[in-house]
Amino acid sequence: MKIPRWKKAEFEEIEYEPMNIKELLGEMKSISELIVDLAYSAILFHNKEIAEEVRYLEVRMDTLNYHIRMIAMLAARTPEEAEKMAGILQIAEAAETISNAAGDIVKILSLKLTRPILPRLIRESDEMIKRLMIDEKSNAKNKKIKDIHITSETGVKILAIRRKNKWIYGPRGDVILKAGDVVICIGTEEGLNHLNKLFKGDVEVLE
Amino acid sequence: MKIPRWKKAEFEEIEYEPMNIKELLGEMKSISELIVDLAYSAILFHNKEIAEEVRYLEVRMDTLNYHIRMIAMLAARTPEEAEKMAGILQIAEAAETISNAAGDIVKILSLKLTRPILPRLIRESDEMIKRLMIDEKSNAKNKKIKDIHITSETGVKILAIRRKNKWIYGPRGDVILKAGDVVICIGTEEGLNHLNKLFKGDVEVLE
Repeated sequence: MKIPRWKKAEFEEIEYEPMNIKELLGEMKSISELIVDLAYSAILFHNKEIAEEVRYLEVRMDTLNYHIRMIAMLAARTPEEAEKMAGILQIAEAAETISNAAGDIVKILSLKLTRPILPRLIRESDEMIKRLMIDEKSNAKNKKIKDIHITSETGVKILAIRRKNKWIYGPRGDVILKAGDVVICIGTEEGLNHLNKLFKGDVEVLE
Repeated sequence: MKIPRWKKAEFEEIEYEPMNIKELLGEMKSISELIVDLAYSAILFHNKEIAEEVRYLEVRMDTLNYHIRMIAMLAARTPEEAEKMAGILQIAEAAETISNAAGDIVKILSLKLTRPILPRLIRESDEMIKRLMIDEKSNAKNKKIKDIHITSETGVKILAIRRKNKWIYGPRGDVILKAGDVVICIGTEEGLNHLNKLFKGDVEVLE
């Protein structure tokens, strides 16, 4: 049996990352906001790739919570600091609960059901979330996001980029796209397909 | 001791609302997506009004989950239906977990802390969520959202409207604003203040 990559990530040793509480909480906030949208989109459009991204983010959230607990313990030396750290841990705990609940939502997709449960049930808009990848031969490679005019030409919005085990949440226009980047986008099916052509190298520019 | 309004809502008898599973799940999805953003914004900007809206939505989520459980029980007559309903209940359960976790996040604000925990900690953008209200003497009263040019004049986006105990999530431009509407908006402080002047009746139009 092949172990899925996100599952492997769960058992990898947690690398030491020099992050402070501000950065950790900031990323936990970004994950909680993103993962809920991803989970619903995955079950609405029966998209197993997006479900996989939910699981990646769930593992990432666990790692962040591990780091924040470590830092909180080490930082609290006075009752005032301990009170503040207890509050921060409460927020971190809630953030992890949210990501676990998102994971529970996408678990539906791995059940061997006789019929799909949700597709077509609450598809109230045409917008969907898809996972695209920047190909080695794509013209978008090594370009700034703002220079390929994604929104004006396709109406698509980039929610996040995963670069190996790092995420960029809500990337700004000056982020440079790299070959191999996993780009999590929201848009209409038509817009997403158009953008995918650029990312795969099938077209030179969006127009 | 005055019982807060959201707390009262919790003990009110649950009214029968003729909603189907599609509508119930749709609203649960909308709440899960909105409530997470609201909870973080409430603690970042120490906004107790938004924390109150989180608690309202938490109570609303409980009510929806109650209805969906009732419908699921009554609907399942065959093993196939039971399987489908079990899946739907799993999603509903996860949605409620998300809203409870959002409630846990804002509980931080009701602790009598010696110092605030989070404000200024992860304020990575200038955008904040605020609760505004349409005054009886506002020129926005009985107007369609699209006709008051909110986005072009203020950059503010309406996330949801609460009209007594009903919510309109992500309202479209043809929704008509009413006096007494609680409007949950995201934008810069400047944009929100400008919009508030129209909603309070201090200016006739946005410009």
